[in-house]
Amino acid sequence: MMKKISVAEATLNGNERKYVLDCLDSTWISSSGKYITEFEAAFAKYCDVKHAISTNNGTTALHLALVGLDLKPGDEVIVPTVTYIATANAVRYCGATPVLVDCVPGTLNICPDSVEKAITSKTKGIIPVHLYGHPANVPAINHIAAKHGLWVLEDAAEAHGAEINGIKVGALSDCATFSFFGNKIITTGEGGMITTNNDQLAERMKLYRSQGMDPNRRYWFPVVGYNYRMTNIQAAIGLAQFENIEEAIAKRDQIKARYKENLARLSSDILFADETPGYRSVCWMFNIFLSKGFAYERDRVRDALETAGIETRPVFHPMHTLPPYKEERTFKVADEWCQRGINLPTHLMLTEQQIDFVCKTLVEATR
Amino acid sequence: MMKKISVAEATLNGNERKYVLDCLDSTWISSSGKYITEFEAAFAKYCDVKHAISTNNGTTALHLALVGLDLKPGDEVIVPTVTYIATANAVRYCGATPVLVDCVPGTLNICPDSVEKAITSKTKGIIPVHLYGHPANVPAINHIAAKHGLWVLEDAAEAHGAEINGIKVGALSDCATFSFFGNKIITTGEGGMITTNNDQLAERMKLYRSQGMDPNRRYWFPVVGYNYRMTNIQAAIGLAQFENIEEAIAKRDQIKARYKENLARLSSDILFADETPGYRSVCWMFNIFLSKGFAYERDRVRDALETAGIETRPVFHPMHTLPPYKEERTFKVADEWCQRGINLPTHLMLTEQQIDFVCKTLVEATR
Ligand SMILES: C[C@H]1O[C@H](OP(=O)(O)OP(=O)(O)OC[C@H]2O[C@@H](n3cnc4c(=O)[nH]c(N)nc43)[C@H](O)[C@@H]2O)[C@@H](O)C[C@@H]1N
Ligand SMILES: C[C@H]1O[C@H](OP(=O)(O)OP(=O)(O)OC[C@H]2O[C@@H](n3cnc4c(=O)[nH]c(N)nc43)[C@H](O)[C@@H]2O)[C@@H](O)C[C@@H]1N
Repeated sequence: MMKKISVAEATLNGNERKYVLDCLDSTWISSSGKYITEFEAAFAKYCDVKHAISTNNGTTALHLALVGLDLKPGDEVIVPTVTYIATANAVRYCGATPVLVDCVPGTLNICPDSVEKAITSKTKGIIPVHLYGHPANVPAINHIAAKHGLWVLEDAAEAHGAEINGIKVGALSDCATFSFFGNKIITTGEGGMITTNNDQLAERMKLYRSQGMDPNRRYWFPVVGYNYRMTNIQAAIGLAQFENIEEAIAKRDQIKARYKENLARLSSDILFADETPGYRSVCWMFNIFLSKGFAYERDRVRDALETAGIETRPVFHPMHTLPPYKEERTFKVADEWCQRGINLPTHLMLTEQQIDFVCKTLVEATR
Repeated sequence: MMKKISVAEATLNGNERKYVLDCLDSTWISSSGKYITEFEAAFAKYCDVKHAISTNNGTTALHLALVGLDLKPGDEVIVPTVTYIATANAVRYCGATPVLVDCVPGTLNICPDSVEKAITSKTKGIIPVHLYGHPANVPAINHIAAKHGLWVLEDAAEAHGAEINGIKVGALSDCATFSFFGNKIITTGEGGMITTNNDQLAERMKLYRSQGMDPNRRYWFPVVGYNYRMTNIQAAIGLAQFENIEEAIAKRDQIKARYKENLARLSSDILFADETPGYRSVCWMFNIFLSKGFAYERDRVRDALETAGIETRPVFHPMHTLPPYKEERTFKVADEWCQRGINLPTHLMLTEQQIDFVCKTLVEATR
């Protein structure tokens, strides 16, 4: 039987073993240890920001950032309807309301025009998401935010290393969050990070990350905090992964190029996102969209790929279609694009033969 | 210079390296993998319960259990005032109110008489905490809960392996939570576990642990969930630790016996908790209490130990003295005992010489 082609895989062929064994030898495996400090420092430098604050996953990074930004019950936050649900859930954890807005075609990133229209007197901030590795239009969002006195939090869970005009995601706005889940560009198994240039915000987030304990008085807690700490072992893996981030991004660029070239040659029924000039996308997940006529065929196509041993994911269901965030109004672009989108296998173990096989199978399934 | 004597240490001299390397070799380092299943199964069997559900730390275990129990804003939960703050914080995360009650002398565990008096029409449940390894009087709490239709959640973060009448903590009530932080009897670095015999509760907790995603439909979320998953590497360490849990508990018993013997011989100003007949305490942290006259000398005594290279912890500040849960009323036992209590070094690397040195230094500091 042929080996299944996974949609994602973790690749651990750098210093992961060495650093993890170092943690075990030192017996420092909890949320204290040198790898935490080193990984945070390396990540801050990479994004060119003052502070990088590690967390135990990307969802807790989002929540901790919102706690840091002092989001409160009754507040509103503008969130794109197309994103992984954690973006909106984090707003709910604070008792606040995510106000959903539509996206732009192709990248499915937040639509700045829709943002401006969604602002009310309760709005406190905006969360652009760099979906599937494509930078969202943060300059436009920052401009709107400045006019209305709002903060901007980038959800960069899926876009480590992406840039706009030479500035890395994570450094484009007030604050940003990353995920290091097992399917991400670099992984810690589970893990997250928050980046910011704001000293006061960084201090607040560190306080709330570690149970809210007064750093100078053991078991004295001025506030209700959380335990969102990354472990030394997670950080050890993260640091080893980080050492190879440029190679990982380059390999993913090659995968994207081969997918695009193959598919453009083989079919006119398969679309993909255009790149924006000045934007440097990274290819976390290579996405295709079935052309309009195929809107309701997406599941059949995914089944055909599955049968051929190819794992895929649907593009996220827009949040306004999910029970917790259900709305009756239409989101024109999201409604039209999401049901046609599929994530194709995108990971460092993928061979050229496998990419070609995925393309061939996909094209056959859409004939 | 003499090596500092830590209040706690992680000991990783079993299969930790082997199992962790197996995770790295298999590339399964995120929240999927065989060690998660194996660790959960081993832990369930140990506690003699149907379900053990791992989480990324003890605080998220508490929160997830309360979400599973459907705790809502406006509800009240009875919590002992003497505990680590996470017990109460988890109630707050649900928007509910922790109602604090006093403790009994010595073990500082929840006082059943105070519980009965604190019940109102809003009370939904009671959280007895097995503090420092001493089982709380769960049979009495269960009796009260049954009369009033309340659930009981054991916070067993500090008491792996403790028993009442041959039944392990974790199996004494509706549900229980454990922590595997680096200072615990067994550790995963950071980690937690929930035990229960209730199938429906277990299902709910699994759903909410993994982002609330429908297990049969990718990226479809019927509810607002959390990412509270343990990683395969954490579980690998946990399983290796678990294989030596009986030895760890036995070694801790010896530590306790030597502390008690030394201190009883050397001083009449140093008190410790009595054991309850039928109760099997485990010695997570060996606690002493300065006799009454020394109430305000605790910090001076801790400083003297610190100067001698001995790390200690204060007994938890009762929550009614902390800013987030501040109350003016008095909690007679907690107010009287907590300010006199000190956790002495308790871990598997401790030598008899070190125990004797701690005792000598302590007795000198209290003269
Ligand atoms: C977009 C979302 O993706 C994840 O969703 P999901 O697609 O449900 O994750 P899943 O667990 O299915 O993993 C996605 C892909 O990554 C692979 N993967 C995940 N963790 C690991 C790992 O530790 N090792 C390997 N080799 N593969 C892994 C997995 O086999 C699958 O192909 C979320 O948890 C977070 C994330 N924001
Ligand atoms: C009672 C509370 O204890 C902890 O509080 P705290 O006393 O503030 O934890 P701390 O980080 O100081 O660790 C307690 C002791 O365990 C030791 N320790 C913690 N993690 C590790 C580890 O990974 N390795 C070693 N060797 N020692 C560790 C640490 O050196 C110290 O002596 C909380 O995080 C959770 C817990 N519920």
